[in-house]
Amino acid sequence: MVNDVKNMTTDMENWDETVEEIERLLRKVSSIVFRRGREILSNFSITPPQFNALLVLIRADEKLTMGELCQHLYLASSTVTDLVDRLEASDLVRRVRDPNDRRAIRLEVQEKGEDIFKQVMAARRAYLSSVLEKEDPADRAQLRASLSDLFLLIEEEERIRD
Amino acid sequence: MVNDVKNMTTDMENWDETVEEIERLLRKVSSIVFRRGREILSNFSITPPQFNALLVLIRADEKLTMGELCQHLYLASSTVTDLVDRLEASDLVRRVRDPNDRRAIRLEVQEKGEDIFKQVMAARRAYLSSVLEKEDPADRAQLRASLSDLFLLIEEEERIRD
Repeated sequence: MVNDVKNMTTDMENWDETVEEIERLLRKVSSIVFRRGREILSNFSITPPQFNALLVLIRADEKLTMGELCQHLYLASSTVTDLVDRLEASDLVRRVRDPNDRRAIRLEVQEKGEDIFKQVMAARRAYLSSVLEKEDPADRAQLRASLSDLFLLIEEEERIRD
Repeated sequence: MVNDVKNMTTDMENWDETVEEIERLLRKVSSIVFRRGREILSNFSITPPQFNALLVLIRADEKLTMGELCQHLYLASSTVTDLVDRLEASDLVRRVRDPNDRRAIRLEVQEKGEDIFKQVMAARRAYLSSVLEKEDPADRAQLRASLSDLFLLIEEEERIRD
């Protein structure tokens, strides 16, 4: 009994330490990759919020409305209007009428938008390549599997919460 | 020879796919954890940039100057002045004179700042706990090891670049 309690306490301490360490590692890795992402963007004529909007529009299954883009970006309507105005002025995106609902406006990514997106993603991957090529192939496969598991668990948690 | 070239091509394709997938997983995981982090902060009377500043000040080995805080946050001096003004108005941080250099001002985290920081970190860990407890202990240990390896490699890359 004494031993059980002792083991439980030890397990609980390890659990706290494990969670703390994984939280720290995720935060540090995200923060450095995020900063490098910003540096990459600074070489292109697009701001970080504009790039996020472009990414959402490109990854969407269909042309989004302004309202849908707001939801995806978790930003206020007025902020997203400004963002889209600038993306349109730079010929990256344009507003088009929905053929099925003439009153609705949808956002279409222009060729220049697709190009800049591809270039930014290639630069991000080049950065990550230079990091990952130093890793042992087996460790790299393990990293991929672990991140994939984590992503599934996090997505599951999102479904529970929403 | 033909086989060699073929194998090389196959390896290169796998490599691109691996990098692309790890980039995608890291981006997705970071983005969801980041969003949950923002949601957690919305329950506290502190904005995300204020919290980042508080985190830097708490994690620093000594009391930072305004200039040092600017460097850590990658923000302009005027922005950081505003941030610190608000942190000071909320009694989270205060400006103190450096005892070794009477002309220098350093930033000291107040008890209320420490408290809010602890509460936010506890909420972040509670969120991550609810995700990680669904994972098999061996997989969790592997995730931790993989993230730790990745962090070391990313840090090494930072040293090369800076």
